[in-house]
Amino acid sequence: MTEDNCLFCSIVSGAVKAAVVYKDPDYVVFLDHRPLFPGHCLVVPRTHSETLLELPEQSVGPFFKLVQLIARAVQGAMGAEGTFVAMNNRVSQSVPHLHVHVVPRKRKDGLKGFFWPRTKYSSNDEMIEVAQRIAKELAGRHSVAAPFD
Amino acid sequence: MTEDNCLFCSIVSGAVKAAVVYKDPDYVVFLDHRPLFPGHCLVVPRTHSETLLELPEQSVGPFFKLVQLIARAVQGAMGAEGTFVAMNNRVSQSVPHLHVHVVPRKRKDGLKGFFWPRTKYSSNDEMIEVAQRIAKELAGRHSVAAPFD
Repeated sequence: MTEDNCLFCSIVSGAVKAAVVYKDPDYVVFLDHRPLFPGHCLVVPRTHSETLLELPEQSVGPFFKLVQLIARAVQGAMGAEGTFVAMNNRVSQSVPHLHVHVVPRKRKDGLKGFFWPRTKYSSNDEMIEVAQRIAKELAGRHSVAAPFD
Repeated sequence: MTEDNCLFCSIVSGAVKAAVVYKDPDYVVFLDHRPLFPGHCLVVPRTHSETLLELPEQSVGPFFKLVQLIARAVQGAMGAEGTFVAMNNRVSQSVPHLHVHVVPRKRKDGLKGFFWPRTKYSSNDEMIEVAQRIAKELAGRHSVAAPFD
């Protein structure tokens, strides 16, 4: 399935050109044209899912196995020391078609990724309350045991 | 397998306390104690792998299915509009035990995630050369067909 007016569906179909790194019947990998660093790849499923949350369960394994292969290849090809692998789901998502960023990293490369301001829980009780809230949501939605300490 | 002196192996074993959201025989999810926003979870495999690149292939599917469930639960529990799902592999990685960050997001929440400086390829030829370099690395390492446009 494709969505009209979706840039990544258009790249998948070939209607819009991109620097394609890899493609198979289910997935396409191409370069972000405005990379954080050269070699910055986007891994996308051909079938339109807006975010990770909507990706069909049976696609999760194959999709992330490919992400793992791409991370290894990007690191090797670009002589990188590491990688940053990330996705924005809805908020800060420039194109509403699931795409995993795979970005080559070197030490002291200037990427501000995790220098964002961090915050703190006001108390241990607040932290435990938040953990329990997420655990209950998980149990309620997915019928899994959600034990917590 | 656990590593001596690994903080996350110690959390997995229970030797170090954390606000645990979920645990099963293979994976543990707990709150980052210095969150980007409250509800910021870390998803870790119990068995020590340093990064995504070393995660055993058979674990990739189950691990990311759990990440998907946690993303849904965090978004629901925290009343968020989206999520940021990311991992630092080696560079900027504070604890050398694979952990996927799942962070609740709201619009205009101030997270600077993708306001990092972007760059450009100096030419289309340079971009194609980089795409081909990664495609070759992928083909060489993994014996997969790596077609590219």
